[in-house]
Amino acid sequence: MTPAAPRPEDDRPAPPPLRRPGGRTTRIRTQVLDAVRAELGEHGYDQLTVDAVAARAGVHRTTVYRRWGDVGGLLADVYDAAGDDDWRPRDTGSLQGDLAALNHEIQEALTARPSIAAALIAASFRSDVAARAQRRLWEDRYTRCEIVVSRAVRRGELPPHTDARRLLIAATAPLYHELVLLQTPLDPHLPDHAARTAALAASAGVFAEPPSDADL
Amino acid sequence: MTPAAPRPEDDRPAPPPLRRPGGRTTRIRTQVLDAVRAELGEHGYDQLTVDAVAARAGVHRTTVYRRWGDVGGLLADVYDAAGDDDWRPRDTGSLQGDLAALNHEIQEALTARPSIAAALIAASFRSDVAARAQRRLWEDRYTRCEIVVSRAVRRGELPPHTDARRLLIAATAPLYHELVLLQTPLDPHLPDHAARTAALAASAGVFAEPPSDADL
Repeated sequence: MTPAAPRPEDDRPAPPPLRRPGGRTTRIRTQVLDAVRAELGEHGYDQLTVDAVAARAGVHRTTVYRRWGDVGGLLADVYDAAGDDDWRPRDTGSLQGDLAALNHEIQEALTARPSIAAALIAASFRSDVAARAQRRLWEDRYTRCEIVVSRAVRRGELPPHTDARRLLIAATAPLYHELVLLQTPLDPHLPDHAARTAALAASAGVFAEPPSDADL
Repeated sequence: MTPAAPRPEDDRPAPPPLRRPGGRTTRIRTQVLDAVRAELGEHGYDQLTVDAVAARAGVHRTTVYRRWGDVGGLLADVYDAAGDDDWRPRDTGSLQGDLAALNHEIQEALTARPSIAAALIAASFRSDVAARAQRRLWEDRYTRCEIVVSRAVRRGELPPHTDARRLLIAATAPLYHELVLLQTPLDPHLPDHAARTAALAASAGVFAEPPSDADL
């Protein structure tokens, strides 16, 4: 279990305690969060209610209200649960390969039918609690991906002091822009192409220069 | 007046006729769309109703219902009106400068308080009609920006047959990703840095190669 990203102060209820791993508490959480994802994927945020989730999960509605509070609390816990995994970026042996593998994962998640990832992004525009949980998860994912950059630096592919976050944003942003915001049809070449663009700029040192000197 | 992007078939009401430019029809449209933007910026999509828009615009509600149908029709017309301008990307004399100027415009629009652009993006997750209108507007904007690339090709900055859309997406996507999806605090260097990254990759020919050969 990898700890989720640091949790800033917020107004949502405390996360459900993870007593007795594998026990009843864990089992109920799994059932409830599976139900949230299924409801969200099938019907979207507008139909998402604590009652529908409880019914689908086969859990008493008061249990859900007590532990998660409301739909925002449920969504936030879906994000937190997503961060409680041991996900690591693939190690393909090259920067471009690693970035492409990451982009293919993103594209698959965003174009699945139904896409829970896309439904969660849409929900983040409806619930501030969900939006904060999404940011925590994504920042945690980008942090985990920094190893892609440090490996490339060690291999001599990149200059030292390359800004990992900027590089990772440059590599992955076109996927989100096309698939989430512009909603253009899937382009099977985009994951590789965006990876190649970022890797090439990175090799040229674009992400190693202090922005204040390079850009102004 | 630049024509808006081609209008695909959809299920929203016909746009209001633009009889007698400068006349009553045009004036009412201006008042109503100003009211939509103001309501959206102040209160967001959840509070946006035909009645609130009519009251704010000082127009009878039946006029609004008759011409725009519903909130989706109002939002779609806000997008269409935004496309009815003579906006052109700035000509700074260099590819990187042009892309940076574009990114600064995007960053300003997305970080204005209130940001109508950000509110419209959020609304596009609520209304399919608004989402389609947003796509039309953005595709029209990217089309208008192709001149940035053709100028750079003419100056010898870029190889011929550079894929303008891919380049423009690479240059602008990090702004939307950071400010709309990740909601990270404003980074004053990002517009220039993202422009520099895309311009450098473009100069190296990344966007001139057929993706099928370059990436697979």
